[in-house]
Amino acid sequence: MDIRRKAEEARTASIPLSAVPAEKKNRALEAIARGLSSRQDEIFSANEYDLDSAERNSVPYPLIKRLAFGEEKLQEVLDGISALTVLPDPVGKILAARELDDDLELFQVSCPIGVIGVIFESRPDALVQISTLCLKSGNAVILKGGSEAIETNRILADIISSAVRPEGIPDGWIQLTETRDDVRNMLDLSKLIDLIIPRGSNDFVKYIMDNTDIPVLGHADGICHAYVHSDADIDTAIRIVVDAKVQYVAVCNALETLLVHESVAPEFLPAVKSALDSKGVHLRGCENTRQIIDIVAASEEDWSTEYLDLILSIKVVDGLEDAIAHINRYGSHHTDAIITARRETAETFMNLVDSANVLWNCSTRFADGYRFGLGAEVGIATGKVHARGPVGMEGLLIYKWKLYGNGQIVSDYSGQDARKFTHRPIDNG
Amino acid sequence: MDIRRKAEEARTASIPLSAVPAEKKNRALEAIARGLSSRQDEIFSANEYDLDSAERNSVPYPLIKRLAFGEEKLQEVLDGISALTVLPDPVGKILAARELDDDLELFQVSCPIGVIGVIFESRPDALVQISTLCLKSGNAVILKGGSEAIETNRILADIISSAVRPEGIPDGWIQLTETRDDVRNMLDLSKLIDLIIPRGSNDFVKYIMDNTDIPVLGHADGICHAYVHSDADIDTAIRIVVDAKVQYVAVCNALETLLVHESVAPEFLPAVKSALDSKGVHLRGCENTRQIIDIVAASEEDWSTEYLDLILSIKVVDGLEDAIAHINRYGSHHTDAIITARRETAETFMNLVDSANVLWNCSTRFADGYRFGLGAEVGIATGKVHARGPVGMEGLLIYKWKLYGNGQIVSDYSGQDARKFTHRPIDNG
Repeated sequence: MDIRRKAEEARTASIPLSAVPAEKKNRALEAIARGLSSRQDEIFSANEYDLDSAERNSVPYPLIKRLAFGEEKLQEVLDGISALTVLPDPVGKILAARELDDDLELFQVSCPIGVIGVIFESRPDALVQISTLCLKSGNAVILKGGSEAIETNRILADIISSAVRPEGIPDGWIQLTETRDDVRNMLDLSKLIDLIIPRGSNDFVKYIMDNTDIPVLGHADGICHAYVHSDADIDTAIRIVVDAKVQYVAVCNALETLLVHESVAPEFLPAVKSALDSKGVHLRGCENTRQIIDIVAASEEDWSTEYLDLILSIKVVDGLEDAIAHINRYGSHHTDAIITARRETAETFMNLVDSANVLWNCSTRFADGYRFGLGAEVGIATGKVHARGPVGMEGLLIYKWKLYGNGQIVSDYSGQDARKFTHRPIDNG
Repeated sequence: MDIRRKAEEARTASIPLSAVPAEKKNRALEAIARGLSSRQDEIFSANEYDLDSAERNSVPYPLIKRLAFGEEKLQEVLDGISALTVLPDPVGKILAARELDDDLELFQVSCPIGVIGVIFESRPDALVQISTLCLKSGNAVILKGGSEAIETNRILADIISSAVRPEGIPDGWIQLTETRDDVRNMLDLSKLIDLIIPRGSNDFVKYIMDNTDIPVLGHADGICHAYVHSDADIDTAIRIVVDAKVQYVAVCNALETLLVHESVAPEFLPAVKSALDSKGVHLRGCENTRQIIDIVAASEEDWSTEYLDLILSIKVVDGLEDAIAHINRYGSHHTDAIITARRETAETFMNLVDSANVLWNCSTRFADGYRFGLGAEVGIATGKVHARGPVGMEGLLIYKWKLYGNGQIVSDYSGQDARKFTHRPIDNG
């Protein structure tokens, strides 16, 4: 079946799915959990097949590690479904309520977005997490997983769609697609797909953002900064910089550029160099940095490079304003931190740095949905509309306006002797 | 100055503007009001010049009417500014607050989107309304008005930017641009412009939506439906249909297609025809409709046509499901109404019709920001992300995440003996 047909099926299913009551969706989630447990042998053997192929094809070890779906992953996934099941229904929440006149009542009510296209990396557990999030929020979903995980993804998608069918979830709400061509063709289907969530390499995400009219929730680069102000506590600054750079280098919220106030640079730079040297971090610096510590020169390109590796660029700045200007110019509006003793200085930084996550005296690595306490994370967005930063289930929801009348017409509210609107809030508690 | 340079100036101004305190923004709004009053003669004479040119160029009368900016319009605009000034600051609102651990506190805080590009029709009062809304919400704005209003727009933009300069609003936050080429070039500036709000002809809005990676808030078509169910009160249905069709034909929430349940068609259709005939509405119907009333045949194309004129297409359907399917297939997800006696039937319709505004027993013409009580309306959006339906000032806002720490690093929260997050809500009342 081609991708347009799949998207049409998803679109058709999305309409009745949007109105499935909470209890039915929760029973369907429980059925998915039961299906995954009772058919776990099928999952494990499909996963072994994928792992074998990956090894034969010399897939790098970190990728193979993410690809594995064993008993531990299954338990994690089941725990996630349990947590999701007990959450209140995100659909049908009254966000605002207003009487326009007698017997003319307006409600702003949360509802699913419709059809979500999700492109995710090799981890097959993401398939379960994303499809259950979509189900709970009443959205149809088109999934494209990593090609290394093809057998595992197939069995997982089959278990999920078979499990929910007897529970009355409309057929076609979950669609699995497997080729890069499908992804490219998806990008033209703006009449059928409402939102694309791409997770993958920067270039791939950028390609998607540049080649579709469909709204995209995500981020390409994560060029994160830490700025060490003149009054920063040196030991705290070193601990934060080391954690932000090395705790997990290959992620979007890892540190890529360190900015240092000129007055603290002579003391701070040698100390941070020694701490980072011991972790094997390669440093690249501006001219002023290199007058204090002996490291290679940073080029203009370094300031807008996301290394995702044990490399850090360092620049000496002449103050808070200079740091903010650098970040807004070269950064990717993802996550940026300041280390300073004064809250007021931090507030200025946090207000004027135009990024999704702005942090004071803590590591950039905190910026994710789990640590922020959002529950499951749909993605991290650096756009300026809809949702920003780590996005939980609310990123899959929008609202509609429902107006309940009793025969009212607009002519009665215009011209001479026009009726007046009351515009009185309705208590929706 | 070319459009890129203007957008760069707006982007530069947007950063300090985003942190201007409420009192300062309100004083600036008051200064704008004073400026408009004290320089009203300049406005009126510029407007007379535009009106003269329009008449010389045989611009149609309705357009000339919208172009006029006299004492009455000035008073409306001043009233709007007063109302805006007393509103609470929309920036800096705490949307969520959560303790992640001791001394590690997370706040989700509303903030301006950044730089908004607005393309509006001939009405010069829109320039004042939009720019003051942007100022109140801390956004820089690039304005493109109708070319017929060029002199009026120039003087208004000059008054606004001169008035706020002494109040400490960063220069460059308001940019006026005048050519269609500028609009075309704006569409490529996704690094500088965060959101485009186009108001104008359907084709123009569609052109913008199809030719930019910048998020667009708006709607192209308004193909609105009313569905008369089998149990509808006939007189109520007629009143609503006539109002929705003729109260103001040239607007997006006017009725374009009428759907009628087959069981009520023999009684309803002749009655509604007589009411619409008396208003000069031309009717086009499906085969079943034409077996009951003598009107011209509707073609397949009619079902997806926004007439914006005294024309209405009519289709007989065999029930609620059929009506919903027709609307979701041919509609534009803008505004659709059901006329029925039963609330339960209305709920089904309102849940399953995938439109921004879904109405029960009232006219589609109610769907706008003023009638909904949103205050000033930024636009009406039919997209599925960010904002939907009539959009007030909240459509110009997004949020950022602010995390206040005390030296915390992520390493302490992972591995053995990992610290646990508390994830405790913070009372932000």
